Amino acid sequence: METTIFYYRQGMPIETGAIIELEDSIKRSPKRLEELSAFDAVIEVETTRLIYHFEKSDMVLGFGETMKGLDKRGSKLVSFCSDEPNHLPSKESLYGAHNFFVILGEKTRGYFIDFPGEILFDVGFEDKNIFNMVIQGVDFDIYEIQGDSLKAVVHKFLSLIGEGYVPPKWGFGYQQCRWSYETADDIRRVAKAMRAADIPCDAIYLDIDYMERFKDFTICDEKFPTFENFVRELRDLDFKLVPIIDAGVKIESGYDVYEEGIRGNHFCVDEKGLPFVAAVWPGLVHFPDFLNDDTRQWFGDKYEVLTRHGIEGFWNDMNEPAIFYTPERLKAFYAHVEKSKEKALDIYSFFELTGEVRGLANSMADYKSFYHRVGDTLVRHDKVHNLYGYNMTRSAYQGLEKIDPDKRFLLFSRASYIGMHRYGGIWMGDNGSWWEHVELTMKMLPALNMCGFMYAGADTGGFQHDADSELMIRWNQLSIFTPLYRNHAAMGTRDQEPYAFDEETTATLRNVIGLRYALIPYLYSSYMKAVKKRVPYSANLIMAYDKDVRVREIEDQLLIGDSLMIAPIYKQNRSGRMVYLPEDMLLWTSSSKEVSNLRVVKQGDRYIDVALEEIALFIRPNQALALGAVADTVGAINAETMTVVGFLCDGIEMSLYDDDGSTKAYKHEQGFDTKIWIKKHGDDIVARMAFCEHHGLMQVKIIVMDGNGVRYEGAVTRETPSISLEKVSWNGK
Amino acid sequence: METTIFYYRQGMPIETGAIIELEDSIKRSPKRLEELSAFDAVIEVETTRLIYHFEKSDMVLGFGETMKGLDKRGSKLVSFCSDEPNHLPSKESLYGAHNFFVILGEKTRGYFIDFPGEILFDVGFEDKNIFNMVIQGVDFDIYEIQGDSLKAVVHKFLSLIGEGYVPPKWGFGYQQCRWSYETADDIRRVAKAMRAADIPCDAIYLDIDYMERFKDFTICDEKFPTFENFVRELRDLDFKLVPIIDAGVKIESGYDVYEEGIRGNHFCVDEKGLPFVAAVWPGLVHFPDFLNDDTRQWFGDKYEVLTRHGIEGFWNDMNEPAIFYTPERLKAFYAHVEKSKEKALDIYSFFELTGEVRGLANSMADYKSFYHRVGDTLVRHDKVHNLYGYNMTRSAYQGLEKIDPDKRFLLFSRASYIGMHRYGGIWMGDNGSWWEHVELTMKMLPALNMCGFMYAGADTGGFQHDADSELMIRWNQLSIFTPLYRNHAAMGTRDQEPYAFDEETTATLRNVIGLRYALIPYLYSSYMKAVKKRVPYSANLIMAYDKDVRVREIEDQLLIGDSLMIAPIYKQNRSGRMVYLPEDMLLWTSSSKEVSNLRVVKQGDRYIDVALEEIALFIRPNQALALGAVADTVGAINAETMTVVGFLCDGIEMSLYDDDGSTKAYKHEQGFDTKIWIKKHGDDIVARMAFCEHHGLMQVKIIVMDGNGVRYEGAVTRETPSISLEKVSWNGK
Repeated sequence: METTIFYYRQGMPIETGAIIELEDSIKRSPKRLEELSAFDAVIEVETTRLIYHFEKSDMVLGFGETMKGLDKRGSKLVSFCSDEPNHLPSKESLYGAHNFFVILGEKTRGYFIDFPGEILFDVGFEDKNIFNMVIQGVDFDIYEIQGDSLKAVVHKFLSLIGEGYVPPKWGFGYQQCRWSYETADDIRRVAKAMRAADIPCDAIYLDIDYMERFKDFTICDEKFPTFENFVRELRDLDFKLVPIIDAGVKIESGYDVYEEGIRGNHFCVDEKGLPFVAAVWPGLVHFPDFLNDDTRQWFGDKYEVLTRHGIEGFWNDMNEPAIFYTPERLKAFYAHVEKSKEKALDIYSFFELTGEVRGLANSMADYKSFYHRVGDTLVRHDKVHNLYGYNMTRSAYQGLEKIDPDKRFLLFSRASYIGMHRYGGIWMGDNGSWWEHVELTMKMLPALNMCGFMYAGADTGGFQHDADSELMIRWNQLSIFTPLYRNHAAMGTRDQEPYAFDEETTATLRNVIGLRYALIPYLYSSYMKAVKKRVPYSANLIMAYDKDVRVREIEDQLLIGDSLMIAPIYKQNRSGRMVYLPEDMLLWTSSSKEVSNLRVVKQGDRYIDVALEEIALFIRPNQALALGAVADTVGAINAETMTVVGFLCDGIEMSLYDDDGSTKAYKHEQGFDTKIWIKKHGDDIVARMAFCEHHGLMQVKIIVMDGNGVRYEGAVTRETPSISLEKVSWNGK
Repeated sequence: METTIFYYRQGMPIETGAIIELEDSIKRSPKRLEELSAFDAVIEVETTRLIYHFEKSDMVLGFGETMKGLDKRGSKLVSFCSDEPNHLPSKESLYGAHNFFVILGEKTRGYFIDFPGEILFDVGFEDKNIFNMVIQGVDFDIYEIQGDSLKAVVHKFLSLIGEGYVPPKWGFGYQQCRWSYETADDIRRVAKAMRAADIPCDAIYLDIDYMERFKDFTICDEKFPTFENFVRELRDLDFKLVPIIDAGVKIESGYDVYEEGIRGNHFCVDEKGLPFVAAVWPGLVHFPDFLNDDTRQWFGDKYEVLTRHGIEGFWNDMNEPAIFYTPERLKAFYAHVEKSKEKALDIYSFFELTGEVRGLANSMADYKSFYHRVGDTLVRHDKVHNLYGYNMTRSAYQGLEKIDPDKRFLLFSRASYIGMHRYGGIWMGDNGSWWEHVELTMKMLPALNMCGFMYAGADTGGFQHDADSELMIRWNQLSIFTPLYRNHAAMGTRDQEPYAFDEETTATLRNVIGLRYALIPYLYSSYMKAVKKRVPYSANLIMAYDKDVRVREIEDQLLIGDSLMIAPIYKQNRSGRMVYLPEDMLLWTSSSKEVSNLRVVKQGDRYIDVALEEIALFIRPNQALALGAVADTVGAINAETMTVVGFLCDGIEMSLYDDDGSTKAYKHEQGFDTKIWIKKHGDDIVARMAFCEHHGLMQVKIIVMDGNGVRYEGAVTRETPSISLEKVSWNGK
């Protein structure tokens, strides 16, 4: 995997902290923008335009969190972190600003535009032959990675931006959210219902209503009379509680966070140097100036208010930052109404009036009206907008690190910028209960992974709108493969907990979620390898099969780790789907964690039956899955036994990573590596296992199928780690 | 095709006029609702609930204009004509109220709920096993059609609702719209650009801005100084002008339509008996009471104001009716603002305020506040809401019929109810430039056809949002098969005329639109047969291949007429797609009207290459397409020559319908039938043609391919109507 890096600097860019592992020699001698040969650069007064002329066969991959598919050609994207509650196909911005993309053509070249303001990426939208980039500034860095493959370029980029965040292992469990489980009793009901329905679940979420009038780092006493006891009560039931933290701090005299913020000059300021005022959930708020070291430290320390009660995870929200309105804008709206009242409205003035209401939220004029202290100077917010959520989550991570340096906390954010993956994950934001958003989950995940965001997932079942049982099932069948696996729904929508539908649906979801838990040995190992080796955890087929032209258009199948390809059902009323296999694979059509229904599927286009209760798992040649036991929580999984299911062509050689799951020892220690070799020796199939001495694993059942569809089985133990497998009949046990 | 009809009457329904061809004996002795055995009926005070328990294999088809796919199971639909500018997956209502559906299971049963108020159809959404229907009333008719096939049931339903509308033949040409070409010069520019780009086009549209301040049946003198001359000027360039007519009549003293309406008591009234006031495009308006015979006659006569200038077609809009606001509701909003100003808004009161703005439009409270005169009684609008657009278009049709009884005018509507298809077509409303809406076009068309609406089509390229070149091309490649083929875009969006992109795109669209014109002999014949024989013009595969279980899930391929299957590309950046062939077919991959690239594709799942400039046309066994010459307009097509392209297995027997294209002679005369027989006689392929004496066709080139991929060609003329075809080489001419 050959790559070469070119580093270009234009003007005097603001330090974003995105790139942390660039070779010093390169860093010290940046090239001039004019040397960036692939693009024509035009520097204007306040903006820079970069133009690339497409070759016919060029594809453009990357850009992280977007509404688009694998190939971004024909898209218009705007890098500007946005609180976008309507995930519509034409939305140009979502919550993340992920300015990394790869042009895949005659050459393979990756680009990261390190610039914290707005960038327009017109990827052949206005003119299909032209990639037009408009940077709202004249100071920025560009990193160009030339490589011999997509894989090589992505690997190099993931290396530049530093090692990714690793959640505690329970963060790989199923997590249940709702806006909102308002009271302790609400949460108790969910916890009991989960256990009563025998559905594994590790965490239940606290959305904004747990706070006292939406004030960060407060707990509403009425709803949660003795919070510390309640956290303990839930922990005794084996549930973690995960509270939300919002970016805005309520303006309220006597409220300690507000008072401290004022005293410490921690808030963003307006033109007059006064703390900037906007309205979000708490009503009027100030925004902590997360671009400031001091402020980050102050705010990060506040998480202790909750960790001291036993809280071990957080989600940071509204940190684009979202603005519902500002007093100035509302005043202008009132004035407009006053004027309108006096005259007979014609239809355009009516629309102007109603349009003004829509324009109250997240207005660019507001983003241009407040400032950050960056070093000694004030920088207008819009110029560094994309760093806000990133630095809030950085603040939280660093605060939590101070609280317990070796502990992994769960932490993820809504807004993000490249580099934030070192501090936490992200969720995909306020999607809806639409089949299109099941598909979107599948489109976003590999693009996010390319940008470093491995710990990611969608609000399974959809945040907005009502879900029906079939949508829930199919979406869960996809989400069991996303590192962050959370069900979340908005206020006013139908209940969508796994037990909220009919009994048959509960039973199906019990099996689906159970399979997630069974797969954790494989999924966790894959995640950790991805983080450590700087490769994507999930990828489009093109990452592995770049010589096969057919995979250039396949975006509804994903690779998960090294062994697995998935082909989720993402349309209503389907009992199967077409799947493209770039090579022969072993198909396990699973309706539970029991390994039956194995068959070899030949390379090519195949129609695969996938009944509503089934999931199609494709095991790649000479690869295997590892399945553990299922339990109520990740922590309760009995690690003594495991089942390995492999597709044996020449020989399988597999190593499974595991660790303590809760500390940061993985950063400097080796982890618990279990190794498996399965080989053909003449007619004999020999399996050998190297058990890790630190791992509780005692016995492994091995099931393999060869290319002819012959199934072999056996079991190894610590006592007999090497055996010959027995041939079993097609339906054999 | 066996069917049995059961007719149920509950209470004293309002006559809708939907069903006009029910046998008298059945009509005279309706069954009681309790006899409707498939549904459990529960009559409550003001509503009726009908409950059906699904069998596992049941599918539910129909419902006309919805956001859903082939099988409506798992959907929630509300039958209530709605001005819905956001075509999102979760939208329950669009413009049409199409209460016809077929339950396809062990038995095949079609149901039409003839009720003009709101109906909720919960087709297994809340509970996947239950179809729950809530009728907002206790007076309605239900028609149940039991049949031995889907085809039989649909055929019977199409028979019950009467013969469909037939547009003039030029209505099958390409049509160019925009909100708005505002002035005569704007239109001239479009007309010239079309001809300069050599793109066939029959009609250019006048959206609301042609009127004097949005007043129906006026023309803005400033923008169109001498309208009559301008219509003539356009006609000389071979373009028809198609103006819009809105439902609401502007309140303006001195405005004749308003004054006449007041004098004639033609407007819907409020509770006090005064004309009801709402605001739409013209500002404050009254709504003509189209449920009244007198009013329909009065309003229908007004179209003469435009026909007298030479106008030959209209589109009726805003006839749900759409309401932007009512003065009462705006007043309440102002009062709310006043109150809000006095207090510090918390966030919920802020959302209440902004929510009120969204609630101004199309409010159910407004629909409950005005009345229609039905016979001697006043009926509250919401109880007959779904009849409004239907009766506006009925009014127009009948008015135009008085103006020229034998002339076919172009006429289509936004809102509709079952039965309106006798008076005009519909367009699919305010979609967007989204790939999802290319797919939606394909989902809606066959469902609309099942409900009688054959003359239908989408705003090609998308009304809302900006289109890019690839989307335009792919959408046009689908729309050339829809009877109504119109490009339309909203104010503020990017130009999307076929010449508005780059030269390569213009060239591609020239060929695509050219192919539409070339196909008119086949498409027009298919349309006319569908109307006359009461069968759908376009259908899902399940209509023809109901024994093949695979087609139950195929909704992205359509049958067009008897001979053709299409498989459009509806995703970005594709160079091909999977196609399921229920039987062997002849594939013509067309990049223009030249017939090359023919090959036989075998039954099964096939990946088909379809480059951006190509369209995949699949000709069914023993069927053929007919291609004519291409011209600037339908009227200018030289009918002397034709090419027939067929897939010869046993023998092709085909009849092509044509007629004068402009009069209603088709209703009582036979039309111009051309018949073609192509048969194998040993090694010989014999083609015979029966030319119609009234048709200008002189010569027909015949190209067939047999199941082995051998191509045969020949040409018949009136002099030698019977010939043996010659075998030509694979790449032969």
